[in-house]
Amino acid sequence: MFVIVTYDIVEGKPLNRTRKILKKYLTWTQNSVFEGEITDSKLHKCMSEIESIIDKKMDSIYVYEIKNPKNIEKKLYGVHKSFDEMFL
Amino acid sequence: MFVIVTYDIVEGKPLNRTRKILKKYLTWTQNSVFEGEITDSKLHKCMSEIESIIDKKMDSIYVYEIKNPKNIEKKLYGVHKSFDEMFL
Repeated sequence: MFVIVTYDIVEGKPLNRTRKILKKYLTWTQNSVFEGEITDSKLHKCMSEIESIIDKKMDSIYVYEIKNPKNIEKKLYGVHKSFDEMFL
Repeated sequence: MFVIVTYDIVEGKPLNRTRKILKKYLTWTQNSVFEGEITDSKLHKCMSEIESIIDKKMDSIYVYEIKNPKNIEKKLYGVHKSFDEMFL
């Protein structure tokens, strides 16, 4: 399936670690958004890793699962940014 | 159709104005994410308003259009936040 993951995590180690985990499984799109094709089991593993890190009283992560990627169309307005120029 | 809009806009007036425009048409989900049901014509109007405000060399906005909302499932990990507690 195709997923879009958006996160709102307090600045600090958990934020950096969450970005690293998401980068293992998905493709960075923008500031706090990752996306990509992923299997159920890998998504489960990814989210388990993240859940062990985040503060569930402060942080939030939304996962939008789209069953058929044919049903989704993505449009960009403005500039394309790369992960490396943002975080490295 | 159902849309997810994510933005990465430099702090300042254009960011606040973009949030206000998106709030007219969609529902705020998280830090820099809005979502909701919208018609083609309203989405076009919304994005025209935003394009006239943002700096296309610095800012970026992604619009994910999902044709059939039945194809999308949303999961929250962590805490639910409200627009008002974030920005008012």
